[in-house]
Amino acid sequence: MIIAGIIAEYNPFHNGHLYQLNRLRETLHPDLVVVVMSGDFLQRGEPALVSKWTRTKMALQSGIDLIVELPFVYAVGKADTFARGAVALLDQLGVTHLFFSSECGQIEPFQNTLSLIQGHQDIYSMQLAHAMSQGLSYPNAHAAAYRFIAKNDPRELVDLAQPNNSLGFHYLKAIEQRNSAMIPLTMKRYETEHNDRTFEKDASVASASSIRRHLLEGAALQAIKNKIPHATCTALKNAQETYGYASWERFFPFLKYKLLSMNTDRLSEIYEIEEGIEFRLLACIRSAHSFHDFITSVKTKRYTWARLQRLAVHILTDTLKSEAKPLALNQEPDSIRLLGMNRDGQAYLALIRKKMEIPILSKIRNHRSKMLEQDIKAAQIYDYLVALGHTSHPFTETGHPPVRYDAHQKSFLGDSD
Amino acid sequence: MIIAGIIAEYNPFHNGHLYQLNRLRETLHPDLVVVVMSGDFLQRGEPALVSKWTRTKMALQSGIDLIVELPFVYAVGKADTFARGAVALLDQLGVTHLFFSSECGQIEPFQNTLSLIQGHQDIYSMQLAHAMSQGLSYPNAHAAAYRFIAKNDPRELVDLAQPNNSLGFHYLKAIEQRNSAMIPLTMKRYETEHNDRTFEKDASVASASSIRRHLLEGAALQAIKNKIPHATCTALKNAQETYGYASWERFFPFLKYKLLSMNTDRLSEIYEIEEGIEFRLLACIRSAHSFHDFITSVKTKRYTWARLQRLAVHILTDTLKSEAKPLALNQEPDSIRLLGMNRDGQAYLALIRKKMEIPILSKIRNHRSKMLEQDIKAAQIYDYLVALGHTSHPFTETGHPPVRYDAHQKSFLGDSD
Repeated sequence: MIIAGIIAEYNPFHNGHLYQLNRLRETLHPDLVVVVMSGDFLQRGEPALVSKWTRTKMALQSGIDLIVELPFVYAVGKADTFARGAVALLDQLGVTHLFFSSECGQIEPFQNTLSLIQGHQDIYSMQLAHAMSQGLSYPNAHAAAYRFIAKNDPRELVDLAQPNNSLGFHYLKAIEQRNSAMIPLTMKRYETEHNDRTFEKDASVASASSIRRHLLEGAALQAIKNKIPHATCTALKNAQETYGYASWERFFPFLKYKLLSMNTDRLSEIYEIEEGIEFRLLACIRSAHSFHDFITSVKTKRYTWARLQRLAVHILTDTLKSEAKPLALNQEPDSIRLLGMNRDGQAYLALIRKKMEIPILSKIRNHRSKMLEQDIKAAQIYDYLVALGHTSHPFTETGHPPVRYDAHQKSFLGDSD
Repeated sequence: MIIAGIIAEYNPFHNGHLYQLNRLRETLHPDLVVVVMSGDFLQRGEPALVSKWTRTKMALQSGIDLIVELPFVYAVGKADTFARGAVALLDQLGVTHLFFSSECGQIEPFQNTLSLIQGHQDIYSMQLAHAMSQGLSYPNAHAAAYRFIAKNDPRELVDLAQPNNSLGFHYLKAIEQRNSAMIPLTMKRYETEHNDRTFEKDASVASASSIRRHLLEGAALQAIKNKIPHATCTALKNAQETYGYASWERFFPFLKYKLLSMNTDRLSEIYEIEEGIEFRLLACIRSAHSFHDFITSVKTKRYTWARLQRLAVHILTDTLKSEAKPLALNQEPDSIRLLGMNRDGQAYLALIRKKMEIPILSKIRNHRSKMLEQDIKAAQIYDYLVALGHTSHPFTETGHPPVRYDAHQKSFLGDSD
């Protein structure tokens, strides 16, 4: 059997994702397409526009067979951590081929790059430490160290300064580290000639970030209708009319309140608070009138925007070093949270369930672990803040069933409807 | 010199307080009246209707000469802690007579009660422990133990089940414990025949709680105008038009968010979280739609409403056991935060300043202690939550100068105006 895996955020699911999925089906003819998707908070340290349940529905309606959740501790982690958690879940689920988009578009340069870095680990590490001691951010220091060891290599290498190339590199590294038989495949990213800020009115594809920007700035759905599948359009419309889109600006009063309630000691207990950034955060929060204000005032060249946003998520969700660090560094996912499936996905699950080393959870009422506790907490905070001022949610996070979709009838089944 | 001291919350300053002040001036002819007043959070575990700065202005306009702040750790403490902090501050300030209202109205029964309990400390403690093991709240257990030792005493005693009698008793106890020469005096509380819920339309006096209830339920100021001094009326009107009154219901979304972000381990680090109440708090918060809902669902006979509200304040302000407990149990106030004064108050301060054992702080930019940190934090949270959605505050808590009032010109001076 060919089981294809995708690692995604679908924030929101758009035509570029659909294009990727169609290419995957055409080239690989998989028996099943499995997605591991981030929950309500994302790798760049942002709340998702709409909840993981809404995004699951979008993906099922566009042809994904099975969707599971990437636990919070990996989902809101740096590229390395993110990739390790996602690859582990896909591997556990029996995925044979990992399919990802990249600016590069060829798999060989990734393999060359991985072997190059592994062959020069000592020099690479020294150069990395040197660059960071000069005050560079991790991604910039990494790029500098990489340029240093790559400069005399005759092979075709991948440009790791490109964000999707960098993620892809970490996928390959994670596959190798766990001795997985999973085969990595890549395709060129649809909008690779443009940058993420580009948004062409008549083009059928735009980046997720430019779509989000349009939506958060209040543009009508009409303006992006040609860039998203019909199902996404309907789901966004519903979400917008019910609670509105989630955004850091909406959540900001709660982040500010949280920071005002903390001193530097307490703040330094938060995951990824390091190097004295706690003093800077507390000095900047008092006069910040918006999230954008705040991050702008905290920003230095040592910190990427994404890293500061991830810090803000950890503060908002009270994610502690003592709890998250051991999980992110050492631990494999200890269960698989099922977000949604169609009949094919369900049949596949029935097939593999007994062979699995970790439980697959449909509901999480009766299963708890440190890792799941963080997922539940993050979802509860997200749900509460999004719904604030509206009528209450009809369900609780812990009681939420997976979304079940009938691809033939094009309808949702049971209580997930 | 006769320096009279009053311990107050002035939430808000009303005709009953004015009556108390006038009686004090008529009977004692003090050279100065000093008030130690709680900050933005009060002994019953509630945010004050209007900020400490506004309440300071009310009090100065009604004839108080000097007002200092009772630090948060005492102000939001049980009667014992509250009294200990307040008496220590008045003592430091050279107060010769402590004047308080009580349901009893005579000082001798207080002295009899204090000597009775001190003479039967062992039996009293045993009875107290016994009653609490039966699941009674502390005040009820205390009343039961007291009834037990009081039953054969021929002297006139005070009914400690009455809230103002109980506070008065703790004032006398604190005076005795610190071997202070301060003389306690009491007068009968104005509305002693009525209970706190009573609010008579035409009466010139009503309790602060009934006045607050009217205001928070949206009654026009007109309805309470005959029960408060003109200065209070003006100050309330301004506050209401600027930010509205503070209340637990307005702050509730932040309390709920805070609880949703905590697990039981983290919650048990909060000051006064004991006996497993953390499980109950987390079990009840998810479905609570209002603060009143929440406390109602948590309430058992072991906990008084005030105790649960104080817990809620400690959660909202992230007041930790590790920080607050040592301060509340063992430590004296380590500085005196000046809130306001008229010329008499200022002259008196100049006189005593050099003899003081602890610094008197006009601004707190350059002086920090654990105790002050909590005061600043509580004020910052209060100010932020009250002003949320409005234009920002013109000043920061740490830079706020004391209010200076010219009693002859009936006007405020300098930058506090």
